[in-house]
Amino acid sequence: MANKNLPFSQQEYERRLEKVRRSMENFEIDVLFIEDPSNMGWLTGYDGWSFYVHQGVLVFMDEDPIWWGRFQDTNGALRTIWMDDSRITYYPDHYVQSTLCHPMEMLAAMIRDRGLGNKRIGVELENYYFSAKAYLTLTHELPDAVFVDATSLVNWQRLVKSDDEIAYMRKAARISEKIIDGIVERVEPGVRKSDIVGQIYADAISGIDDDWGDYPAIVPMLPSGSDAAAPHLTWDGRIFDADTPTFFEISGCFRRYHAPLCRTVHLGKPPQYLLDAEKALVEGLEAGLEAAVPGARAKDIARALAIPLERAGIYRASRAGYPIGISYPPDWGERTVSIRLEDRTILQPGMTFHFMPGIWEDDWGLEITESILIKDKGPAETLCNRPRKLYVKD
Amino acid sequence: MANKNLPFSQQEYERRLEKVRRSMENFEIDVLFIEDPSNMGWLTGYDGWSFYVHQGVLVFMDEDPIWWGRFQDTNGALRTIWMDDSRITYYPDHYVQSTLCHPMEMLAAMIRDRGLGNKRIGVELENYYFSAKAYLTLTHELPDAVFVDATSLVNWQRLVKSDDEIAYMRKAARISEKIIDGIVERVEPGVRKSDIVGQIYADAISGIDDDWGDYPAIVPMLPSGSDAAAPHLTWDGRIFDADTPTFFEISGCFRRYHAPLCRTVHLGKPPQYLLDAEKALVEGLEAGLEAAVPGARAKDIARALAIPLERAGIYRASRAGYPIGISYPPDWGERTVSIRLEDRTILQPGMTFHFMPGIWEDDWGLEITESILIKDKGPAETLCNRPRKLYVKD
Repeated sequence: MANKNLPFSQQEYERRLEKVRRSMENFEIDVLFIEDPSNMGWLTGYDGWSFYVHQGVLVFMDEDPIWWGRFQDTNGALRTIWMDDSRITYYPDHYVQSTLCHPMEMLAAMIRDRGLGNKRIGVELENYYFSAKAYLTLTHELPDAVFVDATSLVNWQRLVKSDDEIAYMRKAARISEKIIDGIVERVEPGVRKSDIVGQIYADAISGIDDDWGDYPAIVPMLPSGSDAAAPHLTWDGRIFDADTPTFFEISGCFRRYHAPLCRTVHLGKPPQYLLDAEKALVEGLEAGLEAAVPGARAKDIARALAIPLERAGIYRASRAGYPIGISYPPDWGERTVSIRLEDRTILQPGMTFHFMPGIWEDDWGLEITESILIKDKGPAETLCNRPRKLYVKD
Repeated sequence: MANKNLPFSQQEYERRLEKVRRSMENFEIDVLFIEDPSNMGWLTGYDGWSFYVHQGVLVFMDEDPIWWGRFQDTNGALRTIWMDDSRITYYPDHYVQSTLCHPMEMLAAMIRDRGLGNKRIGVELENYYFSAKAYLTLTHELPDAVFVDATSLVNWQRLVKSDDEIAYMRKAARISEKIIDGIVERVEPGVRKSDIVGQIYADAISGIDDDWGDYPAIVPMLPSGSDAAAPHLTWDGRIFDADTPTFFEISGCFRRYHAPLCRTVHLGKPPQYLLDAEKALVEGLEAGLEAAVPGARAKDIARALAIPLERAGIYRASRAGYPIGISYPPDWGERTVSIRLEDRTILQPGMTFHFMPGIWEDDWGLEITESILIKDKGPAETLCNRPRKLYVKD
């Protein structure tokens, strides 16, 4: 058997499982099925690019979780999960992307065979990878079960990070700094965007000393000029132009843990509106960090940010951040809290967020962001340590 | 307005729309809602890393499609889709990852407002991104509509590629060759895997001359030795060992089009079982290419492959390939045909597959694969042109 090299201690996995079971109790869930790869990884250690087919983890109140997936991925489970090999189950390959049969028929049969077909079963209704068809098949095959919406049940348990998780995020933050330093050094008029992205990846994945880089859950984004109004355009082979700003949205990743960092680089002398926006945004970020004390609420960060921005005439419609930690594509956010005026979540020490007040106007954009950690007392700590400013290369 | 720089001609988008409408007619679908980013891109040109929130395209029989998504992504739609700006619709940001409201409430309202609330609506039930909750919300909000399973309806229209698509895949293939060449040159005992992956990305994304590289829909995979039994493990920071094989599963990507290519590299003299497997696999690949003539069936490729493998005592349980073309994470397969004994799809000129007979035994693995194009007559063409062998570095 391969050396498992799990990222966390057995004690930590047991604490996590215990937290999930307490939440299952609250929702009166007997069996929980999770398909979100981030939740699977956080709870069991499972790590592999196999989430493009159905797979998941069954969580019980009184026995170890079961890993379930495609037959060919059981070898990956054997090498990455903390549970005993006997907890690995699978469906045969002819269920993969078949129009004749569905993997959830096999999962339902396993649940029935274990005498759980009439229990309260939690499923992640709002999640990538747990498809509508998966839900319809499961409910059809288990007519006596009661299905409970367990969307984000595990995600909420991930919100407060352990010391070991924070240590991983600090390693990711060092990689993020390395990426931003490389960008600021290399971006010049005439350089191709695709070449910069190639170097971003080389920096990100070679990592720092022994801390090799994992793949971030989102690709680098670096729109320029008026395209920066569109936050999710990916790169192309055009060159960077003089007298144009570009924002860079990137994250280092260490063993699936992220620490996103965005900075904007202006080639040449910036226009006054951009300098004004920079000033307001930096003020807003600082006010937000000050507001991010334990016991305050997520909305307090949003409010503190908005005051200097609105004074400068900038009204943001989008949320200003989200929790971060372990993640798989397509998103490095945890999909629980949102830093916005409606969110009353109380901040606790050990929570980590991407404080991300991107400004996307009709024909320009500006991103200066921080990955932050809520401390035992006082303002939030930024995980990365790079000047909080518009970078100007004249 | 930004220069749109659409990847295909207006005529090609019109042909695609026409194909989709004919298929809608067959299934008696009045309105089709597609959320699969590959289908969105193929049909409208939309391109952006925004698929981590709900978005989609509504297709009608008698008017242009409507793009629908998050407000902040409308700027990306304005820059990438062929339809008129007036066809862009959105939901406000407070619907994003909210527990109080769901974006599908807004989509349902739009469908109702257009007088289509009692029509037959096609949805992609088995798809990443169209969640169970999205389905439940849509059906709840549109009680008078009839929902039709339109899973893979658009995917099937993508199966036969146009000349322009094939030209893009040939560019992707040149990038795949560049990646494999770099791997074979750089992999040595003592080199770290993460450093090789960083260089793979640099090669992939800098591209070739003016043909910059896009992000492939799957990250590189390169497990060594007994870990190669697990096809979907991603890399770490360990070094390559002497006397050990590693398979490399990669794809170049040009404007979202893929041409995957896998090769195995053995450092030092390979053991006889691996040489025997190589011989049988290469024979199987050649037999499969010969069998991949227009008019034959997908299963014929699988059968031709299996004969020499089984003669060598290798029985594969997994399918031996899938269609390829435009794609977004988490999969570069098109999720229609599978090259396996049960699949009776008739091969037609212009179809493209990743002929992928990976061998994953209990404690070793071997991957030698080809991206192939079905020709007007005769055997399939391989899009990449690299020796079909186990690479040995002694």
